[in-house]
Amino acid sequence: MSKKESKRKSQLDYFFNPASVAIIGASRQEGKVGYVILQNFLRGAFKGQVYPVNPEADEILGKKCYKNVIEIKEPVESAVICVPAKIVTGVLKDCAKKKVKAVTIISAGFAEIGNHEMQKELEKAAKGKGMKIVGPNCLGVYDSESGADMLFLPANRLGRPGKGAVSFISQSGALGSAILDWDAMKGYGINKFVSYGNALDVSEADLLEYLAEDQTTKVIVLYIEGVKDGRKFLEKAKNAAKKKPVIVIKGGLSSEGSRAAQSHTGSLAGSPEVYMAAFRQAGLVQAANMEEVFNFARAFITEPLPAGKRVQIITDGGGYGVLAADAVAENGLELAQLSNEAKKAISEKCPSYVVVENPIDLTGDTDNERCGLSLQQVLQDKNVDMVLMIVLFQVPKLDERIVEIVAETARERKKPLVVMSAGGSYSESLKMALEKKGISTFSSPNDAVRALKALWEYSEQKAKKKK
Amino acid sequence: MSKKESKRKSQLDYFFNPASVAIIGASRQEGKVGYVILQNFLRGAFKGQVYPVNPEADEILGKKCYKNVIEIKEPVESAVICVPAKIVTGVLKDCAKKKVKAVTIISAGFAEIGNHEMQKELEKAAKGKGMKIVGPNCLGVYDSESGADMLFLPANRLGRPGKGAVSFISQSGALGSAILDWDAMKGYGINKFVSYGNALDVSEADLLEYLAEDQTTKVIVLYIEGVKDGRKFLEKAKNAAKKKPVIVIKGGLSSEGSRAAQSHTGSLAGSPEVYMAAFRQAGLVQAANMEEVFNFARAFITEPLPAGKRVQIITDGGGYGVLAADAVAENGLELAQLSNEAKKAISEKCPSYVVVENPIDLTGDTDNERCGLSLQQVLQDKNVDMVLMIVLFQVPKLDERIVEIVAETARERKKPLVVMSAGGSYSESLKMALEKKGISTFSSPNDAVRALKALWEYSEQKAKKKK
Repeated sequence: MSKKESKRKSQLDYFFNPASVAIIGASRQEGKVGYVILQNFLRGAFKGQVYPVNPEADEILGKKCYKNVIEIKEPVESAVICVPAKIVTGVLKDCAKKKVKAVTIISAGFAEIGNHEMQKELEKAAKGKGMKIVGPNCLGVYDSESGADMLFLPANRLGRPGKGAVSFISQSGALGSAILDWDAMKGYGINKFVSYGNALDVSEADLLEYLAEDQTTKVIVLYIEGVKDGRKFLEKAKNAAKKKPVIVIKGGLSSEGSRAAQSHTGSLAGSPEVYMAAFRQAGLVQAANMEEVFNFARAFITEPLPAGKRVQIITDGGGYGVLAADAVAENGLELAQLSNEAKKAISEKCPSYVVVENPIDLTGDTDNERCGLSLQQVLQDKNVDMVLMIVLFQVPKLDERIVEIVAETARERKKPLVVMSAGGSYSESLKMALEKKGISTFSSPNDAVRALKALWEYSEQKAKKKK
Repeated sequence: MSKKESKRKSQLDYFFNPASVAIIGASRQEGKVGYVILQNFLRGAFKGQVYPVNPEADEILGKKCYKNVIEIKEPVESAVICVPAKIVTGVLKDCAKKKVKAVTIISAGFAEIGNHEMQKELEKAAKGKGMKIVGPNCLGVYDSESGADMLFLPANRLGRPGKGAVSFISQSGALGSAILDWDAMKGYGINKFVSYGNALDVSEADLLEYLAEDQTTKVIVLYIEGVKDGRKFLEKAKNAAKKKPVIVIKGGLSSEGSRAAQSHTGSLAGSPEVYMAAFRQAGLVQAANMEEVFNFARAFITEPLPAGKRVQIITDGGGYGVLAADAVAENGLELAQLSNEAKKAISEKCPSYVVVENPIDLTGDTDNERCGLSLQQVLQDKNVDMVLMIVLFQVPKLDERIVEIVAETARERKKPLVVMSAGGSYSESLKMALEKKGISTFSSPNDAVRALKALWEYSEQKAKKKK
């Protein structure tokens, strides 16, 4: 990449994929924030120029060190600041002089601990200087594509997710990073992550606007406790939701949680009803917890949107079929009524004790073929909008080939299919294999049905907007 | 163990820990039901005598084979039948002659597929012969202590849980075995498992009565779709719940699920309200899904019962503190109000930005000591009934020693403590270490709070019954 400045559609681009980055507060001491961040940029996929800044050092990790950002001769597009709070303002003024486009202030000790004056000073120093600022008091940015990685914990403690199509905006840094770590372990992948902290400048609304336009982001996930500007947030959210699914989880919905949020991020939360109604109106998909957020996100990435809410269940374990039917009812979806043709086609090729209703109970002596042919019939039945297939991989006559059969049968599906499976290591390995082939899998009937419900809600809202 | 008959408190003992067992339908063919079951009894921990029965074979897996059960000269306490449905009646008559105490009929093809007549024949053959029968159409028994293992799937496909204090009764075999498999992977352990199938003789109520008296069972878990005799079930359930927690999950609560249950186990389900009210009255703990069932069970095993519903949250990640406070409110529990002494004791030893309210937010720069001292204060505070501690292990100043500190501080706790943590492999390993030290851990604030709620509900019901 050239040392020259790059041109971008949005100034926020410079946070995620800068041609050059200065780490201000780079440290020689292993484990320190300024050491880990410098190391992240040097040893990973990041292809831009990296400039450590530390007036006390000549060289860190083999890179020439600069006394300040102005001393760097080449252009600096992005700066990451991790110096003590009291000297951040001075450093920020240097960045302004150097015409840095994107500044991320990791340092804490501002409005979040009642130090409003110091945060105002930052605001003043930045005003009218053409810089965009993320933070202070944040984890900053992680971009799996460009390799930009401001997470200040080493990878052995906090896993880094691989490439993915979900981008994640989090008001809480600790929550956000714990989820990234979980995501990495699960092998789900992330596109871009931003922890924006006190939102001195760049807010959740700005990030929504940016990610709505970002081509590599297919789904946006959002954890917020409060918003800076309700009207702007809803406008940007609405626009984003027109382009791609936006899944939101709001901390502090209860008055108890709201009080906690106030002492955490200073967010004044409105009543849960007001928030939930506003989210619905904006077309956001609401999740009950963080694991559900990523369950929904996976389904949005792999599945087409459904035309209706009629779910057909196929199972090889009667008990799970029953629980799935319960979940369909509890979540306001409907059990599909199979067409007579489909019923006939399945019944003809199955033993008489196979119940071809809803659920279709293939029973525990099903084989690969029985699973495949019923899935095929159901996928092409006009009476079915979505398919929940329960595969208990333990049953004796199924084997590893079931993965290929399900994936192949569903390859050009026009309606959503989710697979539910419960069990231990053997089942987990086959679930993982299905995931790799682009099928979303879940561990409980309720999780699977909730994901279908999210697909249906988003689909319905999109259809309404078109009218 | 002697070849003589053993004397038991309950005849059901012979299913779980027989001095001798005949595998009727033992097979020479690897992978077949009668092969896997014989293998289970031979290569595991089972110490009793094992007699393969198969008229076609002289020897299987190195054991002398018998033409029928009568040919065995020594007493046979337990028989496992896995021959085709149409010859089960004859085999059962042999068992009666041999005075077998406990017969498990694995074979399917009876009432569950509408073959009521054949099931009636079984009933007739067994009547007045002093045998207890589990099944037909079931997986039978798994006992981690005695090594009795009738699960007909090999261990590489269906994991066997280690020893534990939870016993599990399942009307659905497939669901039951998938959960055992999951349990084994999670390392949770199981005491006894029974899949009782069509309940020709031994019913869920009989098993509840038996496990209520079983000394090694501390918690009973129950999956049912319907019950044979409602009055008897509730009586036995009530008695069992007086002795130990009984956690129930009922498939077919919705009318959709109920229809599915009818074609699965022939169970006619009542209205959800009726069931839920009856369960509550009997003192059963109701769970929303199978994962929750085992979350509850773990908490019941490790935790003392709470005296009230006031929860104190301690966290090192503000966002999770907010979500936990939301969960406390949503689940009908209360946030505790710390005493002034406790507040003072914690504040004195923490930096000024640590918020000592509820949640206590130790912030992301907490160290081991800060966690330990706040936990200690909270555990001894009279204003607190239950403690939810959120530990994001990723934060920089915590290290592996936190496990020992939490476990040691909580060692003689008089009130429940649950730990919530989110993250990847590093966090999972520390959670596992905490579990080993007798602390229940959870992956989401809601899971942790739901477990506390279950403890509180059971505690409250127990207190009411004493009045």
